[in-house]
This record gives sequence, C-alpha cells and structure tokens, in this order.
Amino acid sequence: MKILMISALLASSMMGASLIDEAKKAGLKPIPSSVKAVEKLTSNPKNPTTAAKVELGKKLYFDPRLSKSGLISCNSCHNLAIGGSDGMSAAIGHKWTANPHHLSSPTVYNAVFYSQQFWDGRSAHLEDQAQGPIQAAPEMAASKEFVEGVVNSIPAYVKAFQKAYGKDVKIDLTKVADTIAVFERTLVTPSRYDDFLNGKQNALTKAEQKGLKTFIDKGCTTCHNDIALGGTMNPFNVTAQYKHMNVGDFKGDANGMVRVPTLRNVTETAPYFHNGQIATLSEAIKEMGRIQLGINLNDKETEEIETFLKALEGKKPTIIYPMLPASTAKTPKVDVVNP
Amino acid sequence: MKILMISALLASSMMGASLIDEAKKAGLKPIPSSVKAVEKLTSNPKNPTTAAKVELGKKLYFDPRLSKSGLISCNSCHNLAIGGSDGMSAAIGHKWTANPHHLSSPTVYNAVFYSQQFWDGRSAHLEDQAQGPIQAAPEMAASKEFVEGVVNSIPAYVKAFQKAYGKDVKIDLTKVADTIAVFERTLVTPSRYDDFLNGKQNALTKAEQKGLKTFIDKGCTTCHNDIALGGTMNPFNVTAQYKHMNVGDFKGDANGMVRVPTLRNVTETAPYFHNGQIATLSEAIKEMGRIQLGINLNDKETEEIETFLKALEGKKPTIIYPMLPASTAKTPKVDVVNP
Repeated sequence: MKILMISALLASSMMGASLIDEAKKAGLKPIPSSVKAVEKLTSNPKNPTTAAKVELGKKLYFDPRLSKSGLISCNSCHNLAIGGSDGMSAAIGHKWTANPHHLSSPTVYNAVFYSQQFWDGRSAHLEDQAQGPIQAAPEMAASKEFVEGVVNSIPAYVKAFQKAYGKDVKIDLTKVADTIAVFERTLVTPSRYDDFLNGKQNALTKAEQKGLKTFIDKGCTTCHNDIALGGTMNPFNVTAQYKHMNVGDFKGDANGMVRVPTLRNVTETAPYFHNGQIATLSEAIKEMGRIQLGINLNDKETEEIETFLKALEGKKPTIIYPMLPASTAKTPKVDVVNP
Repeated sequence: MKILMISALLASSMMGASLIDEAKKAGLKPIPSSVKAVEKLTSNPKNPTTAAKVELGKKLYFDPRLSKSGLISCNSCHNLAIGGSDGMSAAIGHKWTANPHHLSSPTVYNAVFYSQQFWDGRSAHLEDQAQGPIQAAPEMAASKEFVEGVVNSIPAYVKAFQKAYGKDVKIDLTKVADTIAVFERTLVTPSRYDDFLNGKQNALTKAEQKGLKTFIDKGCTTCHNDIALGGTMNPFNVTAQYKHMNVGDFKGDANGMVRVPTLRNVTETAPYFHNGQIATLSEAIKEMGRIQLGINLNDKETEEIETFLKALEGKKPTIIYPMLPASTAKTPKVDVVNP
C-alpha cells in the first residue's frame, strides 16, 4: 500500500516536472518566488520603485479630485476590491458616459507584465498609460492644468512629491502619472500556479495540471503566454466573425491587432472580451476556441481549462486605504451638477 | 526664570482645568480614552458589534454591486479617504443625478454619535439610515429584491453572514444595512481635543484652548455640543435669511429643524452647510455667528474658533481595503449604459 502511494506520488511528481518543462516551452513564465526578484522585474529603471513613490502613487490612484468632476478616481474603473476592474461591459466615466467604443476596463492587477497597455496597445508602459484616462473626455475628463492645479494646491501632496523626487521636483501631469504607475507596478498577484512553475510540483492539483496540459495542447498559449498569460498584441477575430457581439466599433490597432488580456484572476473579471459581451468563463473559453483557434472545445475540455484558470487566482497585496490630504482654498473648484 | 516658567505652566494648567469644566458645563463630551469604553459606547445592544460583522460590514460598505448600476457604493459619497464625504456641494448618485434638494453628503465619521441621521433627522440610528441611500432613486437606486439577489448569489457573502449571525440567518436588506451600520459604528476619530477633555491639560495648545473658550463663550455649543459637536435637531435659519444660499428647497423636518453636522474633522469636509454653498471654514464660522447667534464675529474671534476647530482633526481608524468575493452566474446582471 505504502509503495503504491509512493509510486503514485512519484508518477504525479514526474508528470508535474515534465509539465513544467512543457509550460515553459509554450512560453509560460511564473512570477518569481522571491520578493526581491519581483521588485527587480517590475521596477522601471527610468522611474525606479521606492517606498515614498508607492505610498504617494497609492494616494493619487484613489484620489477622485484628479478628475474634472472630483468624483472619479483611477480606482473607480480599476477597482482593487473587485479584481482591478469594474465588472461592467463598458467603462462608465465623466457624467455617466459609456466608453464610446463600448470597451471594458482592463484589470490593473499584473498589468505591469503587459508589453503594451490599452486594448489597442497604443501605450508602451504604465507611466504613459496613466496619463490617458485622467484626460480622456469620457473617463476622468481633466485637463493637464486642472490636475496640476489640484495637486499643487495641496501642501501635503507637494511635500510628498518632494520626499519622493527631491526638493526641486516639478509636479506636472507626467510626474503624477509616473507616480501612479509606480504604485500600479506593485499590484502583482502570485498564485499556486506560480509556485508550480517555480518547481513546487504539488502546488497544483492533478485536475489543475490536467487543465494546464489541455490549455497548452489546444494552443491557448499561442496568445495567452508569458507572465501575464496575455499582454502582447495578437489578431482578434471576434468583431469580424461574430456580428452579434459587435457592440461598439472597436477593431484593434491599425493592423487589426488587439492586446490580449491577462488570464490571472480571470474568475473575478467577468464580463469577458473587450466589449464585455460574454458573461461566463466557460462560454468565453468555448468562444475563444472557435474564433481564435478554429476548434470546438467539448464540455470536458472546457471544464479542464476552466479548472486550470481558477488556479490563477492570486494573492492580492494588502492595501491600507489611504487617508488623503484635505483640499485648500486654492484647490480648483468643481461644479458637480454641470462639471 | 525657572520659577516664572513653572508658574506660567501652572497658570496654563489651571486655565486648562477650569476650561475643561466649562466645556463640560457647555455640553461638550469627549470620546472616551479607553478602547473598551468606546466599543461599549458605540455598540448597539440590539445589534452588538463583533469582529465578524465589522469585517463583513466593511466589505458591503465598499461594494458597488449593492447599487442598481453596479457602480456606486456607500463609499462613493461617504469616501473614507476624504473625510467620510465627497467634497461635493450636492451628492451625485445613480446616472449622475444630483440630490434633488441639493443636499450634500454628511460625513460618516463619528455619525454613530448623532442622535438623528440624515439632514432632516428622519432616521434614529445608522441601522435604519443605511437602508435609505441604497434604495433612493437619485443615490444607489437598488430595490430590496436586487440587493438581496446580489448578496445571496455570492457564496462567500452567504458564508460571512452565517459566520456573523448564525447558520439560519435570513439575508435581507435589513441584515445588510444592520451589518453596514456595525462597520460604521467603528468609524470614530479621537483627537487631541478628546485627550484634553479627558484631563490631559497640555493636549491643546494655548491658542486652541483660547479658541475653545471663544467657541463656548459665543454660544456655538448651543447647537454644536455632546460628543459629535453636533448631531441633534435645531432650528437652522439659513434658507429663510439667505436667499442667495438657497440652492435647493430643503427646509428641514416638519418643524423646520435641521440635524446639526459634526465639527469633528471639519477641515476635511468643505464645502459647508447642507447645500455646500460655503467654501471656507472662516466664512462658515462668520455666517453661523450671524445667522444662528445673531452676532458679528470679528476676524480675531473667527480665527480663534478656526484654530480650535482644526484641533478636532482626529485619528482615523486603519482600514485595510477589502477584497470582495467575485460575482457568480446567479448575480443579477446590470445594464450599465441604461441601468
């Protein structure tokens, strides 16, 4: 009996070991297990991560006063409490405006691992990305001058910028976005899947390992690869093939390429696809098989893959809700009824 | 020199001691210094505070899925990061609707010490209050059935309610509001002012003590008294006397009485008055002198009172931002564009 159990364990371990190799060959990469290595991987050499920047960036991320109305913060659409998104099929912004292309808010968790930001990949990194929604008319709708006016009118913010960047810091929109990006770089969620790829062969159950194998064998890793299981530009045939899902006119970048969303914490980021038209994960898996891979995944295969995807639920960083410094008489006023 | 310093210190202490008596005679009361005493004071015997309820209540407080749109949480208007309010002159809710009476969102911090809730005092306690905004059409706009549908569709919520109230708990809107109220009961912010009233005579500077004395002598404590420095019903003559401030048609309760707002953390809750028409604290102090007390406070007196009010800035409880359980296929769907 003991021998049987040991040999079963060995067989499972051996399966684990070869599956790790297979996963790596398919382009999958773990979040490193050491905190130092994660910090090194996520820090931007041109805008290095420091504790002072992270703390200030967190405040700015949660501050609705960076929007023209004073009501919308980064966290409104990329809500860290509900998977880093908003659960909406389309982002809703300034004066309750839906995204004009009916695009949904991508999760901010693990976005640091993307090689492009935004659904059309028009932004190379988080520092650049963070400037977008603050200024976009259907999102936070603030002008550069307004944001700079707000931040510079609040002495505690000025002091925090000086602490983070030195006495002579010029606090402009670029600096604000850079600082928000540093905070966002800390929003990574290591999971049991990472433990597995990092060599801990029993970190995933047999069913999850089976699911990972199916995920690889069926070709999902063609697009969903690297650390984020997503994050690069790929052709996305949904709008062409499925008219009924064609809510909004989004067609990707100039070459019809779309930034592949991460599958980490995908259980928390329904509804799915760029336009949020798919409600459940199993539906999303089947649709992707049909549209992107040209195969029909049966119920068993779909379930296997779903079991694997659930194992991508990661451990969120602990976030102490920031207490923001008060506005002053110099803080630009907002007209909330007609902002 | 030494003797002079000591006698100055003694004089200041004696002033402190008699001022404490004076403050208490004027109806001012501190937040107790012992954590146990605060817990006893803020717990509702019919709905006692427990760690399980506080944790669940915090989750519900931050959960936008309790609103019809899925976008608005209690924290949207009573934002714990910016003084427990929203910095707006009128609350903005469902589909960007302004409060029809142009009423602003009162702070949730220390609201547990109010004897009435809402500007017109129509609610006797937080448990009752919390049911209002969830259902109000211009606020979260959710029906009872919708809220109950959402919470019961999420197994982790059901489990948390069972942990808090026992296996047989019926999870309805009342229970949801009761639980949110328990969390809100923990949102108290003791300050140096409380240390002072609790007997630590050097907890307030001389200037702050002078301000407190002016605050009492001028009669501000007629309305701004008890622990909250506010929270009871009083006549409020603003709408009658100041037409230019009469934004909205709010006239108080049936007897023209208005719930006096707390002065704790008042530096963080501009703009002031029920309709947010007063931008600065010094203006608010002068207006209140004129309208409510029939006196003209000069610049010196106004500054003294303002110096005291600044000492009411309290220590906020540390809030770890909650990670909310994911929606399921059974969670009621929302149409975000036309909710």
